[in-house]
Amino acid sequence: MIETPYLLFLGDAPDQLAAKVAVGIKDWRPENAVGQYRMDGCKADLGLADMTLTEAKEAGAKTLVIGVANRGGVISQEWKKVLVMALEEGFDLASGLHNLLRDEPDLVAVAEATGQKLHDVRVPEIEYPIANGIKRKGKRCLAVGTDCSVGKMYTAMAIDAEMRKRGMKSTFRATGQTGILITGDGVPLDAVIADFMAGSIEWLTPDNDEDHWDLIEGQGSLFHVSYSGVTMALIHGGQPDALILSHEPTREHMRGLPTYQQPSLETLRDTALALAKVANPDCQVVGVSVNTQHMSEEDAVAYLAKIEADMGLPATDPFRFGSGKLVDALAAM
Amino acid sequence: MIETPYLLFLGDAPDQLAAKVAVGIKDWRPENAVGQYRMDGCKADLGLADMTLTEAKEAGAKTLVIGVANRGGVISQEWKKVLVMALEEGFDLASGLHNLLRDEPDLVAVAEATGQKLHDVRVPEIEYPIANGIKRKGKRCLAVGTDCSVGKMYTAMAIDAEMRKRGMKSTFRATGQTGILITGDGVPLDAVIADFMAGSIEWLTPDNDEDHWDLIEGQGSLFHVSYSGVTMALIHGGQPDALILSHEPTREHMRGLPTYQQPSLETLRDTALALAKVANPDCQVVGVSVNTQHMSEEDAVAYLAKIEADMGLPATDPFRFGSGKLVDALAAM
Repeated sequence: MIETPYLLFLGDAPDQLAAKVAVGIKDWRPENAVGQYRMDGCKADLGLADMTLTEAKEAGAKTLVIGVANRGGVISQEWKKVLVMALEEGFDLASGLHNLLRDEPDLVAVAEATGQKLHDVRVPEIEYPIANGIKRKGKRCLAVGTDCSVGKMYTAMAIDAEMRKRGMKSTFRATGQTGILITGDGVPLDAVIADFMAGSIEWLTPDNDEDHWDLIEGQGSLFHVSYSGVTMALIHGGQPDALILSHEPTREHMRGLPTYQQPSLETLRDTALALAKVANPDCQVVGVSVNTQHMSEEDAVAYLAKIEADMGLPATDPFRFGSGKLVDALAAM
Repeated sequence: MIETPYLLFLGDAPDQLAAKVAVGIKDWRPENAVGQYRMDGCKADLGLADMTLTEAKEAGAKTLVIGVANRGGVISQEWKKVLVMALEEGFDLASGLHNLLRDEPDLVAVAEATGQKLHDVRVPEIEYPIANGIKRKGKRCLAVGTDCSVGKMYTAMAIDAEMRKRGMKSTFRATGQTGILITGDGVPLDAVIADFMAGSIEWLTPDNDEDHWDLIEGQGSLFHVSYSGVTMALIHGGQPDALILSHEPTREHMRGLPTYQQPSLETLRDTALALAKVANPDCQVVGVSVNTQHMSEEDAVAYLAKIEADMGLPATDPFRFGSGKLVDALAAM
C-alpha cells in the first residue's frame, strides 16, 4: 500500500508520452496528486502546480511517485539527487521502473537511515495464497481482450469512475504497474509466481457488500500465447459475475506476434464465458468495449452499431463515448 | 542440468511411500540409479544395491539425489552428516524438498569449498524468455487432465518409454519437481514468474527432428481454478500437435476444491482443443488416459470400452494396460 497523496516526479521527461504513468494518475485519481516536480529540460507538463519538495510536503504529499520512464534503464545521477533529497524530506518513493529502487545501494541506505519506504510496484510485496475457489460475496467485473493492450485497464477505470458518479459502490482493482501507481495498491500479476497467480487475485478481490462492484484490471488475452496463462488466472481467481469484451479493430496481428491473428468477438465471448463459468456458473457477458482511437468518429459509431446489432450487447468506446452503457448493463444485473 | 547417474538417498524414510521420488527414478530411469543409500531405521527399499558413498563414487555416481520427503520440513542433523560427507566425497546434491539446500548455510559453505553443486529443483535455475509463439519443428504431445494429479506425468513417461522401445525418437520433458529429478532436467513450471511461463515451455521443447516427439509433462487442469493458468501456459507454450485427455473417474470432487466437480471428457476435449489450436491449428486430440487404480479390472475394462465407443478415441490405463494404443495413435499422425 503506497501512501497518498503523491508528488508526481516528471524528471527530465523528453515528451508527454514518457510521463504516461503520471498522466494516468492525474486523469484517474486527481485527488492523489498535489503537484508535479519537474527538472531542468523537462518537456512534460500535467498542468498541475510545480512544487519544490518542501512545498509538496507542506501540501500534504506523502510519496514521490516516479511518473516517467527513464532513459536506457538507468536511474541517472541527476534523478538520484532529487530522490535522495525526497527521502531526507520524509517522502516515500514509488516506482514502476524496470530497474528497481531497491537495487540502488545509495537509495536503500538513505531509506533505511530516514525510515522511509521504497515501493517497487513491479515486485510483489506480500506472499499470496494458493486459490481456494470459494465463492465470495459482492460483484466482480473483468474485461477480457481479443489481444493485449486493447484498453482493458481504461475500461475498468472508466466504469469505476461512472459508478462512483452514480453513487454506486465500486473499487478499481489494479493488476499491473500503472494501475498500482494510480491507485496506490494492487497485485503486479505478471511478476507473481505461477502457483499463486489465481490466489493473488482472490486476495485482491475479497468478500464485499452484495451491491459492491470490483472492477478488475484485465491482463493479456486468452488468445495471446505469451500471456494467456496470466489471463486464465485472472478469470478463475477473479470469479467474475460479468465479463466485458475488449477489442481494437485496426490491429493487423496480435501484439508482438506477427503470425497470429485476433479472434472474433464471438470467439472471445464463447471461449472466455465457458472458462469463467467454471469458477462462477452465473457469469454473463454484458458488453463490448472498443478502442476506436484509429478510426474516424463516423466509422467508430458505425462499427459500434454493427456490434450491437450482431451480438445483442451494448458496445461503446469508453474513452470517446463514455462508459454509461456498460454501467447500465452492470447495474441491471 | 543435474549430472547423472545418481546415488539415491532414502534417509530414514518411515515407509516406501515417503520415498516416491526415488521409486519414480528407479521405475523410469533405472540407468540413472547406481544404488541406494539408507540410514539406520530406513523402512524404504528400492531393491537396488545398498552402497556407501565411496562405493557409489567408484560405481560412477555423480549426484546424491534426495529421493525421500523429510519430516516436518526440516533437514535433520542426521541427514546433514551424510549430505556434508557426500559433498566432501565429490557428489553434487539434488533435492525437491520445500526447504531448500541453498538455505542451509553449512551445506552452502561446504559446497563452495568443495566446488560441488546444490540443485534445488523447485527453483528455476535460469532466466526464461517471453514466449514468441513461433512454430517449432518436431512433434509435441501434452496430456491435459479433468483435474490435477490424474496421471499426466505417468502417461507422458509411459508413452516416452514405449516410443523408445519401438525405436521412435522421443524425449520426456519434465515440468515438475519429480519429473526433473527423474530425468535430471526440466522446468519447475509452478515456480516460474507469470510472464515467463509460456516462454519457459518454448525453451524446454525447442526445434527438433521432424519425426521426434516431445512428451511434455502436464500440470494442473484448465478446470482447476487454483492452477489453470499454469495449464494454459503449457498449452500455448508447448504448442502441442497431439493432446491426450487424462482422467480419474472415481473422484468425488476436484482435488482440494470440495465444491467443484470434474468436467466431462467431452468438455475437456472441446475446451482444450480450441485453446490449443490458437498456437497450433493442426492440433488433434488423439486418445484418453484413465487412472483406474480404484476400479476392479472388470470395471476398468468396461469403462475404457465405453469411452472408446462414446468418443471414438483409443483409451487405456497406461499403468495397468500399457500405453501401446496411445503410441499407435501418435505414430499414425
